[in-house]
Amino acid sequence: MMNLTILGCYAATPRTFTNPTAQVLELKNHLFLIDCGEGTQVQLRKSKIKFSRIKHIFISHLHGDHFYGLIGLISTFRLLNRSQELHIYGPVGIKEIILLQLKYADSWTNFPLVFHELISKESELILEEENLTVSTIPLKHRIYTNGFLFREKLGERKLNMKAVGKYKIEICDYQNLKNGKDYITHENEVIPNQVLTFDPPKPKSYAFCSDTVFDLDIIPYINGVDVLYHEATFLDEHQKLATPTKHSTAKQAAEIARQAEVGTLILGHFSTRYGSIQPFLEEAQTIFEPTLLADDGKVFQFD
Amino acid sequence: MMNLTILGCYAATPRTFTNPTAQVLELKNHLFLIDCGEGTQVQLRKSKIKFSRIKHIFISHLHGDHFYGLIGLISTFRLLNRSQELHIYGPVGIKEIILLQLKYADSWTNFPLVFHELISKESELILEEENLTVSTIPLKHRIYTNGFLFREKLGERKLNMKAVGKYKIEICDYQNLKNGKDYITHENEVIPNQVLTFDPPKPKSYAFCSDTVFDLDIIPYINGVDVLYHEATFLDEHQKLATPTKHSTAKQAAEIARQAEVGTLILGHFSTRYGSIQPFLEEAQTIFEPTLLADDGKVFQFD
Repeated sequence: MMNLTILGCYAATPRTFTNPTAQVLELKNHLFLIDCGEGTQVQLRKSKIKFSRIKHIFISHLHGDHFYGLIGLISTFRLLNRSQELHIYGPVGIKEIILLQLKYADSWTNFPLVFHELISKESELILEEENLTVSTIPLKHRIYTNGFLFREKLGERKLNMKAVGKYKIEICDYQNLKNGKDYITHENEVIPNQVLTFDPPKPKSYAFCSDTVFDLDIIPYINGVDVLYHEATFLDEHQKLATPTKHSTAKQAAEIARQAEVGTLILGHFSTRYGSIQPFLEEAQTIFEPTLLADDGKVFQFD
Repeated sequence: MMNLTILGCYAATPRTFTNPTAQVLELKNHLFLIDCGEGTQVQLRKSKIKFSRIKHIFISHLHGDHFYGLIGLISTFRLLNRSQELHIYGPVGIKEIILLQLKYADSWTNFPLVFHELISKESELILEEENLTVSTIPLKHRIYTNGFLFREKLGERKLNMKAVGKYKIEICDYQNLKNGKDYITHENEVIPNQVLTFDPPKPKSYAFCSDTVFDLDIIPYINGVDVLYHEATFLDEHQKLATPTKHSTAKQAAEIARQAEVGTLILGHFSTRYGSIQPFLEEAQTIFEPTLLADDGKVFQFD
């Protein structure tokens, strides 16, 4: 199960009914907060997400609409008497910004605050858990920016209990079967593993790419992911604004999704100049049909 | 005319329906923003206050619930192509915090951003305009904190046009009369100024005192002001929490108002632990009857 909750998906500045970038990815029982624009903690409350379940926060870049809510969220964690570690992954500078504000407030956190500052312009593995990995996706924007690739690890093979019963295999051998080994009977007959097990579920993957100019170089990193969130700040009619500001259009996002052969494309980071976001969907679907629109408060479930 | 718009008046952390401290004082056609908790720019939009009319921002202290919205507001001013000066008054450190974030975003403002960093523990005049002054009120809180006293200057005397006509006084003499001078006729008769003019309107005054422990030392600064905003984080039943955290109770705020003989007391900075803020009013009014409750979005008009 992979769930994505959009807390905010609009560009530039918080407004009465739209919020800057923040989203929560639920994967393998982890809750990952990705970007943290101003107002994120209120959006978390509105989406009824338990603050204490968030242990890892990923910040793409140091433009305000992607991280101005972070210091407030950290302060609130403190007020809520958090004790567990909080890990923050983001561009170098984020630690200095947060600690400077804690210093002047004389409000040191009562929980371990662990910064993982990023400087590499190559993709790197930044988190490895038992059942998933998180890597950076180097993006091209006006300042140093990373996307993030969340990928489940291939799980164990599932026992075919009917076949296991037929060959009277004992429990102590189950782990070997799950690991893909063949079974050798007392009569030295080799039972191939695929007779005794089913394939594990296909590992799920999610790529977050915001903010970025149209850039085919990201395709090797995101190739074949189940879900790609790609920024679409502008419509094609404003493409001349997209390139100098290093943003993308809906059409360009769709072109990336098509070439990377992803399962589903989610568009976000919409400029607030548009009265409706529906045209983003129509524009993208001319190139890549399985496209969805993000919107604040929306929850996507990928089973 | 003096208008006070409460953008947020709750302590500690922004929540779904309550906002941290921020308010706008309209006085002599100036709009002064006082404190700027997270979400202030959205609250400004909800209250339909034109961003461009704000030229002076006063920050009481560097706890997050009083200034985490400032960097976002400055960034939005930039996105709105502001060109006029913005003056920020606040504790030393505020400039470093703001500039550090602008540096990492590579987003320098396209308007003059003028910091007035405060370090004095004595009251000082920090802004003088033609028709008003702003001074600090030294407050006792966990970190260096100032309240702010906004005071209209005494205006010119108003001409009594009936009397002016009777003595056939010419227009070129009006300014002398407004300045309080007597009039001498061509026959050398002295007409006392008070025959020819009315008293100017009583200058209005507003004192903002948040956050502060119960402190009688502030009374000389706020004595007789028309309106006092005083923090009341707790009810009297939680007074044992107020003193160590250097906050006040509703009863203590009322006691300050009573001793300072202010016109009206407005209570704010309520802890979010209380289901209703009505008990704050009832508690304060047992000591000081002309008490009002702040609430997010509320506008007070003082004519």
